[in-house]
Amino acid sequence: MNWQTLSFDSGSPVPIYRQLSARLAGWIREGVLPDGSRLLPTRELAGLLGLNRTTVAAAYEALEQDGLLKAHVGRGSFVCSTGGRAVRFDWETRFRPSLPAPPSFPPAEPDSLNFASWRHRPSGWAMTALRDAAGQALDRDAAAILQLGPSEGYGPLREWLWSGMQAAGNARPEDDLLVTSGCQQGLDLLAKVLVAPGESVLIEDPVYPGARDLFLAAGVQVHGLAVGAEGIFTTELEQELARRRPRLVVVTPNFQNPTGASLPLEARREVLRLAARFQTPIVENDVYAGLRYRGEDLPTLKSLDTEGLVIYLRSFSKAAFPGLRVGWCVAPRAVARRLIAAKQLTDLHTDQLSQAVLYRLAADGILERYLSELRATGSARLEAALSACCDLLPAEVEFSAPNGGAHLWLHLPAPLDASDLLARARDHGVVFLPGRFFDVSRSHSGALRLTFAGLEPDQIRRGIAVLADLLHALAPAAQGRSEGGVPALV
Amino acid sequence: MNWQTLSFDSGSPVPIYRQLSARLAGWIREGVLPDGSRLLPTRELAGLLGLNRTTVAAAYEALEQDGLLKAHVGRGSFVCSTGGRAVRFDWETRFRPSLPAPPSFPPAEPDSLNFASWRHRPSGWAMTALRDAAGQALDRDAAAILQLGPSEGYGPLREWLWSGMQAAGNARPEDDLLVTSGCQQGLDLLAKVLVAPGESVLIEDPVYPGARDLFLAAGVQVHGLAVGAEGIFTTELEQELARRRPRLVVVTPNFQNPTGASLPLEARREVLRLAARFQTPIVENDVYAGLRYRGEDLPTLKSLDTEGLVIYLRSFSKAAFPGLRVGWCVAPRAVARRLIAAKQLTDLHTDQLSQAVLYRLAADGILERYLSELRATGSARLEAALSACCDLLPAEVEFSAPNGGAHLWLHLPAPLDASDLLARARDHGVVFLPGRFFDVSRSHSGALRLTFAGLEPDQIRRGIAVLADLLHALAPAAQGRSEGGVPALV
Repeated sequence: MNWQTLSFDSGSPVPIYRQLSARLAGWIREGVLPDGSRLLPTRELAGLLGLNRTTVAAAYEALEQDGLLKAHVGRGSFVCSTGGRAVRFDWETRFRPSLPAPPSFPPAEPDSLNFASWRHRPSGWAMTALRDAAGQALDRDAAAILQLGPSEGYGPLREWLWSGMQAAGNARPEDDLLVTSGCQQGLDLLAKVLVAPGESVLIEDPVYPGARDLFLAAGVQVHGLAVGAEGIFTTELEQELARRRPRLVVVTPNFQNPTGASLPLEARREVLRLAARFQTPIVENDVYAGLRYRGEDLPTLKSLDTEGLVIYLRSFSKAAFPGLRVGWCVAPRAVARRLIAAKQLTDLHTDQLSQAVLYRLAADGILERYLSELRATGSARLEAALSACCDLLPAEVEFSAPNGGAHLWLHLPAPLDASDLLARARDHGVVFLPGRFFDVSRSHSGALRLTFAGLEPDQIRRGIAVLADLLHALAPAAQGRSEGGVPALV
Repeated sequence: MNWQTLSFDSGSPVPIYRQLSARLAGWIREGVLPDGSRLLPTRELAGLLGLNRTTVAAAYEALEQDGLLKAHVGRGSFVCSTGGRAVRFDWETRFRPSLPAPPSFPPAEPDSLNFASWRHRPSGWAMTALRDAAGQALDRDAAAILQLGPSEGYGPLREWLWSGMQAAGNARPEDDLLVTSGCQQGLDLLAKVLVAPGESVLIEDPVYPGARDLFLAAGVQVHGLAVGAEGIFTTELEQELARRRPRLVVVTPNFQNPTGASLPLEARREVLRLAARFQTPIVENDVYAGLRYRGEDLPTLKSLDTEGLVIYLRSFSKAAFPGLRVGWCVAPRAVARRLIAAKQLTDLHTDQLSQAVLYRLAADGILERYLSELRATGSARLEAALSACCDLLPAEVEFSAPNGGAHLWLHLPAPLDASDLLARARDHGVVFLPGRFFDVSRSHSGALRLTFAGLEPDQIRRGIAVLADLLHALAPAAQGRSEGGVPALV
């Protein structure tokens, strides 16, 4: 038996004892270690392999538990390959280590005040319009909808989107547009086309976990840019561009998730100047476009870009129906061509029934009417959230003041931890997402996200009142450190 | 000017001169090379960098064309950064080199006999049923359908699929099921979870380009397994498992695309024995399930698997409506959990409207009725294709004899090239896909795929008659080599 051929990867997330037991199990299954043969004593094998004896013992124990080995006191451990039939393949050793575990969050009770996620509740007229649109789409164009379609998107929808993007200054003649299965897929395709494992990407910090984990899963180095009341800091962006030489910078200039912050016009211009200087592409995630409740819309990065460096992502998810997975991407033609090729390999194309239904709703002006309704509702909810925060929260609690979108970001005074607050709030029927969900390079354990867009104004006030009561009770613990200045909103 | 810091990657697909021009352009844009400064003469810079002078000259020329450099005869080349404004970012240098160009195929004329792709044409009753199902799905469950849903799939559809898979022996208690956006996404998720760049995968050769290119785009080594009249050869599989130690083997045991070949029962068992011996996961792509026109269904690899090594992929695409992108995957629970996590990062979840519509069609028995109709139609078309091949093609042309699916594979006698045949056939209004589209490790330039499932029997006969006439005219060129034996069908 050539034991010395066993080698181990100490950099692997799989523990050494497990690597050893997997190799031995392989030898048993392949008959290299035949049934009834005796394994080396743990001390001896440990010496041969330069391992700790307890490591080898743990490997033998794992094999014994799997029924591949039988230990006889005083005689040693014997291969028992008949037991091997019962042993299933050890998948855990086969997974790519870069895949992050999905964030786990216990589901909210049905009757709780849910500030953790945003559930749309379309009104009756919108439901009727949707049902009609589905029937009409099938009546008018079933032959095309039911076939395999173009990877770049269902023709009528794509043309409608293109005109809209051109009119808004978000598409130039040298650009092209592809339909994606939401913004999330836009990012996934960009990672595939533009970022190799080991390369760097800059994203906001905090950021919604889907953006962070997508790049991490692809083996990409993800570096966070702090987010203040007015979005990322261009001074830090400049430093990080110089230091990391990233392949992409991903930003959400409007109503960023989770902070709700928006980037002012001058900062947008500066982002573009830096992008040009460092020749670094910018991905503009504009998933909350159309959901401004106060003030005037600011020009997108895409519309201000003169260098062809901005890739623009948008979706019907927040502005229409999240369950229909349809978004789009406007990019310089060379990039769009690659994204379309990657899209074809990823899922051929986005579902055509939903594309056709959304096209009908868009072309008939229904989506615009629905969006006005969402804005009116959202505006009332934002006002309720901000006034409840002002009226009820302890003065030491900082909160963002977004002008649109769905989320508010709260910063608790040190040393309070938002996860502790959540545990207490749950008991009172209130849930939210603690800041740690959104960590990139920094810890946000003292912060939390309140998603106001899915609750009625009175629910919002009641929920924030619960949090305020809990915080007032906890405040003494924090007072020692919260004096002496307003903490920065990050 | 620190010219020596310029270094080049000779392994990159970007030519050296272009790497040099990109670096210099960066220096010009960043002001490192200020406006009006003189570049080193090409000979001098070439000497410093150890490059050929023509390489440096080509880089300068590119910069001049971009307006970043101005050459003055006898004085040298001067930076002209004002021209830099007009220069757009050079995206070509930023794309990941592993992304293969999508196969290009000129579109078929509308009135041509199209053997290149399969267009479903649902009958009237199916269209009505579909329209009703869309209305009912929205009437019954709009609140859930329109929200963000679970990454593993829309609950009612997932449960229905799970029962069906259990009943068919394709799911065991230790398995789990997730809904995907077609089989293509199933493969994409598997690549993400189980295969790192540089690792190996075995697939059939020929194979449909989507499977091959997906892995190539992920930087994976793709090795082909020859396909004969009865699918892959287990002797070659054994050799390649030993030689390549692949992370996955991807096979389509039923009506493989493009050959139409099916793996006999004994070969299925041998594939599983080899998988167990080499502890290698098998991905069973059963996208043509339900489309058998002759004989009895064979057990799937998944149903025969006792080791928990088979991952099963299937879709509504071929058996219902390709434009609705809904498929599914049954896998050991640990794998399914990872796939669901990867799915969430890829596109959150599959479109819920289509999932709900397909669930209604499935639950009401409509899909089964529709599939029977597809089978009846497909059977007549297969018979027409085979009898036309028998009656009309020159004896030297070999063709596969599938029992289901959509495709027939023809092997022309050497030295005929299927691309040449296609050029002539186009002139007579007949198109098909030449074998080279499906190459993995071998050349299939003498073969071609005839997709019979989308044409009426009389169209099929007419189209094959056109090919037969062309081949009879070409045959003399081939006769010298086609004598002496029947070529192997690969």
